[in-house]
Amino acid sequence: MIRARTPEELARRIRLARGLEPADLVLRNARVVNVLSGEIHPADIAVADGLVIGFQAREARAELDLGGRHVAPGLIDAHLHIESTLLCPREFARAVAPRGTSAVVCDPHEIANVLGAEGIEYMLAATADSPVGFFFMMPSCVPATHLETSGAELTAGDVRRFLEAHPGRVLGLAEMMNFPGLLAGDPEVLAKLLAAGDRPIDGHAPLLSGRDLAAYALSGPGSDHECTTAAEALEKLRLGLRLMIREGTSENNLDDLLPALNECNAANVMLASDDLLAPDILARGHMDHKLRHAIAAGVPPVRATQMASINTARHFGLTGRGAVAPGFRADLVVLDDLEGFRVAEVFLGGRRVRDLDFPRGAGAALASSMHLPEIGPELFVLPAGHGRVRAIGVIPGQLLTEARVLEPTLERGRPAADPDRDLAKLAVIERHRGTGNVGLGLVQGLGLRAGALASSVGHDSHNLIVAGMDDADMALAAREAARLGGGFVAALNGRVRAALPLPLAGLMADGSLEETSGRFARLLDSLSPALGEFRGNPFGLLSFLALPVIPALKLTDRGLVDVNAFGFTPLWTGKE
Amino acid sequence: MIRARTPEELARRIRLARGLEPADLVLRNARVVNVLSGEIHPADIAVADGLVIGFQAREARAELDLGGRHVAPGLIDAHLHIESTLLCPREFARAVAPRGTSAVVCDPHEIANVLGAEGIEYMLAATADSPVGFFFMMPSCVPATHLETSGAELTAGDVRRFLEAHPGRVLGLAEMMNFPGLLAGDPEVLAKLLAAGDRPIDGHAPLLSGRDLAAYALSGPGSDHECTTAAEALEKLRLGLRLMIREGTSENNLDDLLPALNECNAANVMLASDDLLAPDILARGHMDHKLRHAIAAGVPPVRATQMASINTARHFGLTGRGAVAPGFRADLVVLDDLEGFRVAEVFLGGRRVRDLDFPRGAGAALASSMHLPEIGPELFVLPAGHGRVRAIGVIPGQLLTEARVLEPTLERGRPAADPDRDLAKLAVIERHRGTGNVGLGLVQGLGLRAGALASSVGHDSHNLIVAGMDDADMALAAREAARLGGGFVAALNGRVRAALPLPLAGLMADGSLEETSGRFARLLDSLSPALGEFRGNPFGLLSFLALPVIPALKLTDRGLVDVNAFGFTPLWTGKE
Repeated sequence: MIRARTPEELARRIRLARGLEPADLVLRNARVVNVLSGEIHPADIAVADGLVIGFQAREARAELDLGGRHVAPGLIDAHLHIESTLLCPREFARAVAPRGTSAVVCDPHEIANVLGAEGIEYMLAATADSPVGFFFMMPSCVPATHLETSGAELTAGDVRRFLEAHPGRVLGLAEMMNFPGLLAGDPEVLAKLLAAGDRPIDGHAPLLSGRDLAAYALSGPGSDHECTTAAEALEKLRLGLRLMIREGTSENNLDDLLPALNECNAANVMLASDDLLAPDILARGHMDHKLRHAIAAGVPPVRATQMASINTARHFGLTGRGAVAPGFRADLVVLDDLEGFRVAEVFLGGRRVRDLDFPRGAGAALASSMHLPEIGPELFVLPAGHGRVRAIGVIPGQLLTEARVLEPTLERGRPAADPDRDLAKLAVIERHRGTGNVGLGLVQGLGLRAGALASSVGHDSHNLIVAGMDDADMALAAREAARLGGGFVAALNGRVRAALPLPLAGLMADGSLEETSGRFARLLDSLSPALGEFRGNPFGLLSFLALPVIPALKLTDRGLVDVNAFGFTPLWTGKE
Repeated sequence: MIRARTPEELARRIRLARGLEPADLVLRNARVVNVLSGEIHPADIAVADGLVIGFQAREARAELDLGGRHVAPGLIDAHLHIESTLLCPREFARAVAPRGTSAVVCDPHEIANVLGAEGIEYMLAATADSPVGFFFMMPSCVPATHLETSGAELTAGDVRRFLEAHPGRVLGLAEMMNFPGLLAGDPEVLAKLLAAGDRPIDGHAPLLSGRDLAAYALSGPGSDHECTTAAEALEKLRLGLRLMIREGTSENNLDDLLPALNECNAANVMLASDDLLAPDILARGHMDHKLRHAIAAGVPPVRATQMASINTARHFGLTGRGAVAPGFRADLVVLDDLEGFRVAEVFLGGRRVRDLDFPRGAGAALASSMHLPEIGPELFVLPAGHGRVRAIGVIPGQLLTEARVLEPTLERGRPAADPDRDLAKLAVIERHRGTGNVGLGLVQGLGLRAGALASSVGHDSHNLIVAGMDDADMALAAREAARLGGGFVAALNGRVRAALPLPLAGLMADGSLEETSGRFARLLDSLSPALGEFRGNPFGLLSFLALPVIPALKLTDRGLVDVNAFGFTPLWTGKE
């Protein structure tokens, strides 16, 4: 509930609610999905000054007969990296608002790894005037590890500074992924937790359990979105972590976690996207898709709606959001069909979404983030050595990789790419600071047959990742990615075949949902059969090959990482 | 969850939770009534530094085997006037802690009407060091009306001052009973609502509905404890008011309101006492009794427990209270029997209640609040007049009265008490400011046969109320009440028959639950048959005869009040 601040405002509200002054809008013959009373009831929803003011008809400047349609509150995403959509914040808002999204709790972790505080300032500026509510959690793990070169570092002091400078917009501390550091009592981790004060701290602790999970919960994190089994979810709920059920592009946990829900714990459950690619939003939707899924899986519609509205609003203290009730923002999702959660029309702050402006945000501009050295084919020549070579082994459908040890295919004494063995060269080129760092290695199982792929999206430091069968194509793809200010590029036989430019921090496009999705689809179409046959999106797979917190073997700009040993390891085994 | 504040504290917690340092206590073989995960699960509850730190056994300084007993979180009363118990805060805490109560949200409305800010300061001081958590809401309606003389007035400035001076203890604005003033836009009412800022505001709006209820909800109140039907409760829930189900001494709404509960709204429901007399606590219990009642009425035990713990803690922002989970206070209610909610033992802050001190509170002292004029029989002589006389007609079991018009029984031309007609004299003597105000009238249906009763508890201004069949006994009872510093007194034939002294503000005794209940029982026993045969407690009935906000006819120190006209009315009709 948004409280009035002045006697005049309060007096006006009372007169409005009593019908002594005309409302702005009445939606007649609605059926309210009331997440507070836990039921669906008929009402004429009266709106004034952007707020719901009551459930009775009255004199109003405009009226709309909904003919018995259901009206749900605006939907809220509990955890999203906007960057993962490939859309800039404005285009993301334009894409999801007509699908019923009224607010998003964002973790600008990706852009913070590229641009640090400047990246977060950009996100704040780009969303400040949006009709969709954008709230931010301060990234807690930038850089993610000491084994890579990120574009920036965020300290506990930065966390504190943003929290104090943006009350009500920067809500707390984002997912604390560094649970090993937390459990070890790492001073900088503790300082970040303490910097949050009493504000929300999001958790991220896959498979943590027992005493260590209790220690984690006791340290401040109040949620988790990494559960993959109902038993894991239930243990976390028991220990006081609220459950964010993730339904994103590659991680889909809803079906597995629903058995953990019961009628006495559902208020502690929220729905979240985490990572969600633009084409998925276009094809399936955003929170509306999650609700369709949940309802189809047997969750009663009111409860499902609560998980995408009031539960999230209360968890994060999003005043006046998450319900259709007096004093709440008139964020109203009119449905053609509740069970199928088919959105007919959306009102944000009492105004039709189709009548709203989606501003780019004053001062929301970014210079190119691509600071690359000269790149020629010679950059990709692997060193000579002794013994066998280590190669990253792709496991289909997983972010986990295998650490393989292979006989190299040699050319002039150097390990070479070998299409017959599905063995590509892999390079991670530092792109933030101009260090000239290049990590080189081999990857098996990518599905690449010829040419090269380059991506400026590379978790979590977002250095430029290039995979290829041909050194010249690798150089070309990398140069093109640099020229575009970042993006996904495919090159073959000395020509750029297709690209999706991502000029905003090398992470986000500046086009609309439709344009970006279309361009991305054309890029993927351009790959096969000449470059290879891929299961799904090879750029997605590529972007996680540099993430040195997921076992077993990864590549950063500083070299091959044995994740289990949490240290570097050479390409060559050194044994004959 | 109570967050750590320093790196040292946080590091210690992590070590404790991980079992790297010994715990203070482990309760082995517990079955946790887990209000967060909504289930009951086995656990060994580890406690350190007053907090629960995990659910695994470990090295500990003390251990207790619970043999599979259930452990619920400490119970919280969402709304209580401590004064209504007749116990001082210390004795109240001693009485309810062994019954499982760990925290109470109090509205010191009664003492504020007598002593204003000084009364609230007393309540704060008396409870500051209590092992039971006492939280306060600032009384919003002191005085309750302009038709009576209270001991004090509290302004919006007072509300603001207490909220700012006692963060974390004074939580918000107490029940806004003056909904007519709110709906009319009364500036002082609006100022008090605004003084609460974003803090909780409790509602009190019996039977308010439709647009007026929407206006009320839109003005800030976020709860209501006055519902008497499920339909009323559901409408209030729809409009965003949380439901406090009241089970007190005379108001019992649980059975009537349970039909409003459903599995999607129960998180918005709390249990509250409002007014609860000491003998009821002794005979039935406090929150434990409400839980027995709710469970017997079919509410699942976990949900019932939520209504007396986490729901209330979240509504009021009571950090670290309301659940058994890491980082929550180790307020643990060990049960012999969950269904019957039979409390075996209670821990508060990790310590057994029987080992705890219940301090009186430094600086918690009150001077006598009885400032009465000389009182003789002549004070009770009613005026002569013309026509018939108005008499307050008691309706058995209700606070509502009838406005009766009767032929007076005359003595020397003056209306007299008449036992044959169950018609007693009634006087309300101003006791705060020495104004000498005395309101005089007649009451029919009290059940008094002879002698007189006096009470310094008289809602809401707590002037001295005297009812009698004999003027001399009325004077004697009033003088004895004054001599005791307040209390309930029965006098007959020139002798004080029995009394319950209430020296603290004329509202509270200073003895224990057992002493006070025993003394009260003896007082009631002393009444019959000589003074009359009473249904229940005639002092309770008496105390509401001066409350000029409940129709139809009431008496204040300033005269007879026609509540429906909200103004004074004469004793005599003036018509022949």
